Amino acid sequence: MLEVLKGNIVHLPKFGQYETIKKGYLVLDDGVIQGTFQTLPEYYANAEIKDYGDKIITQAFCDLHLHAPQFPMMGMGLDLPLLDWLNTYTFKTESTYKDTDFARRVYRSLAKELIRQGTTRVSIFSSLHREGTLILMEELEKAGITGYAGKVNMDRNSQPCLEESTEESMEETLRWLEECKRFTGIKPILTPRFTPSCTDELMTFLGKLAAERNLPVQSHLSENTAEIAWVKELHPDCEEYWETYAKYGMFKPGTIMAHCVYSSEREMTAMRENGVVVAHCPDSNINICSGFPPVRKLLDAGVKVTLGSDIAGGAELPIYRTITSAVRMSNARRIASGWTETALTPGEAAYLGTSAGAEYFGCKPGFAKGDKLHALVLNDSNLPEPARELELYERYERLLYLMTAENIVARYAEGRIVG
Amino acid sequence: MLEVLKGNIVHLPKFGQYETIKKGYLVLDDGVIQGTFQTLPEYYANAEIKDYGDKIITQAFCDLHLHAPQFPMMGMGLDLPLLDWLNTYTFKTESTYKDTDFARRVYRSLAKELIRQGTTRVSIFSSLHREGTLILMEELEKAGITGYAGKVNMDRNSQPCLEESTEESMEETLRWLEECKRFTGIKPILTPRFTPSCTDELMTFLGKLAAERNLPVQSHLSENTAEIAWVKELHPDCEEYWETYAKYGMFKPGTIMAHCVYSSEREMTAMRENGVVVAHCPDSNINICSGFPPVRKLLDAGVKVTLGSDIAGGAELPIYRTITSAVRMSNARRIASGWTETALTPGEAAYLGTSAGAEYFGCKPGFAKGDKLHALVLNDSNLPEPARELELYERYERLLYLMTAENIVARYAEGRIVG
Repeated sequence: MLEVLKGNIVHLPKFGQYETIKKGYLVLDDGVIQGTFQTLPEYYANAEIKDYGDKIITQAFCDLHLHAPQFPMMGMGLDLPLLDWLNTYTFKTESTYKDTDFARRVYRSLAKELIRQGTTRVSIFSSLHREGTLILMEELEKAGITGYAGKVNMDRNSQPCLEESTEESMEETLRWLEECKRFTGIKPILTPRFTPSCTDELMTFLGKLAAERNLPVQSHLSENTAEIAWVKELHPDCEEYWETYAKYGMFKPGTIMAHCVYSSEREMTAMRENGVVVAHCPDSNINICSGFPPVRKLLDAGVKVTLGSDIAGGAELPIYRTITSAVRMSNARRIASGWTETALTPGEAAYLGTSAGAEYFGCKPGFAKGDKLHALVLNDSNLPEPARELELYERYERLLYLMTAENIVARYAEGRIVG
Repeated sequence: MLEVLKGNIVHLPKFGQYETIKKGYLVLDDGVIQGTFQTLPEYYANAEIKDYGDKIITQAFCDLHLHAPQFPMMGMGLDLPLLDWLNTYTFKTESTYKDTDFARRVYRSLAKELIRQGTTRVSIFSSLHREGTLILMEELEKAGITGYAGKVNMDRNSQPCLEESTEESMEETLRWLEECKRFTGIKPILTPRFTPSCTDELMTFLGKLAAERNLPVQSHLSENTAEIAWVKELHPDCEEYWETYAKYGMFKPGTIMAHCVYSSEREMTAMRENGVVVAHCPDSNINICSGFPPVRKLLDAGVKVTLGSDIAGGAELPIYRTITSAVRMSNARRIASGWTETALTPGEAAYLGTSAGAEYFGCKPGFAKGDKLHALVLNDSNLPEPARELELYERYERLLYLMTAENIVARYAEGRIVG
């Protein structure tokens, strides 16, 4: 079925470069993008037109790193460093997801909130609970969100309230993968929490599983100096943190590594060469005082960078806020470098939160022909009256800084209206 | 008239220290606070009780530095450093306020938005336009906002679109002060934009005026390294930036200096000794890449520190967002110091945005007996279901990070309901 959306089109087909069409047309066939046009081609003259008036039609957001079970603890305990914060708040909160009713309620409200805030694609951590993870996947799928979700593996260095034995971890993972087969929009991703949480035996098992079943992997890398020192102690044979994933075959195309605040040039090269994708989580990095992530350096090194809200280290679920946080944190890096490194422009950061994420999920950047539509319609009429007529990209950037969920008036995921 | 508010009381009578009363009572007499109580004293038994149920009753916010005419340019051009940003965006925008209809529309919506976001007291910059400034003051007063507003003085180094001669600047200031006499809630504050914008003649005039009429002063200090170098060129006789205000008698009790990112120990001492108050503007400092402000050092040096949204260098009008931005920026400072400086806790930053601002306006910190009530009632029932019962301070801090204007269900300013 042909469908035409009319409105002010703003998208990012190239890194940091907007393409804008004032009162333009976006044509869909069964939810698949046929093209964007200033003038509607004759061929589509009879298609139904959905006119969004002066509103902005733009790409939906992708969140490549967040912890679903931490949704209830957002905005709390944000004066502790990573390892203390994990032990004081996080593990206790995550342990409550053995209660499947609680899991159902929280994950339903999280899925609803993700869509409400314009995030249509995710790669998400669950807790170690198999049932809870399946509930999370059900709720995401019901809300219209696609992407990956992972049962967390952690068989060491946790707390008594949140433990699994190596054997349990392996068994439950296999059972979970079996039960995942019923999902179509949300797929499983192997999720060793981070190197300190997993024994060599468990890592060996997960690496094999990733290879045999061609499963993607997500984890954490070089987030914090104390963490890096700990990893070095645990794996004295590895020169750098990334090698503790590589030696088990988990540093491979499709692997998402969150943070990479302290990645060396060698680690960056390894990421590029192995096709590993970074989930940059600026709000988390500043909240739990990890450091100033070298995003420009990662990009210059040819590494693929996407964005993650990283709730609840991050305290902002909306990716539009993660985008402006990425600009701010690149400014922090610029200041800390004595103004020698260049910061991200809002358009560059927006690309990371939209097109770069979409590419991870197999799409092309921007509104590209052949891809299913993931889009938002934004109403900026409640923002302050401007002193002159604004360019479309200015309206878009102003929304990134000032919008709330109320500015999103329609959401498309996988080619259909959701939310 | 006696009035009792019932609810969960959270306030900050001491720096960084909450006082919380679960299901407590706040008693008012003609809008003046009589006390906060766990159990309602017999004496008030017959007073009317307004029951806010499980909601939180807390202090309203104070914004000690913002530029009213920049409201329409929030969230735009935030990839330029201070002096470029002024020349490319700011001066052009401010020049449009010679149009009094435009001024009326923008200032009405700004005043409404300030109250909607819980800011009941301000010290605010207008543009150089006398009429526009009076309109701003009218609209703030109508909305129930109290504090100070200033016609900007700038007789050099501006742009052709936004200029006043020295004589005009002086005459218009005198006329404006005359016309200000009709206001009761909003009072005038002398506002030399910053040292580079004002000739020695104008500064001399303003300093005299401040002394003769006992008027407060607001301006900018040590925001950016390029600005500091420029000031040094303009005033080679002054060792430090603050002396360019001091030599005209404008570094005195009640003076508000925005930013102070690069204040030396000597400048800090001068601030403490002269009773000058800092308006710390964290979001602005990161957006326009000024630097990491030394808030902990200012506090340790005994300087009074308050918060400013500094729109539109800041892109967040709500002070609750400025509070979390202050925490984040103190984390940035901590990281940049190699984790040697301590960061602000959320409770410390909240004090700066509430009690410290109230003190500037002559009140005591917290809900203090004898002060007129400035309060907000917050509903957090739409926030994620927590994994355990939260302490009141945790509920408050979570709101600081996650709330929008929708969470504010009632606002009190000068003892009466507004908004």
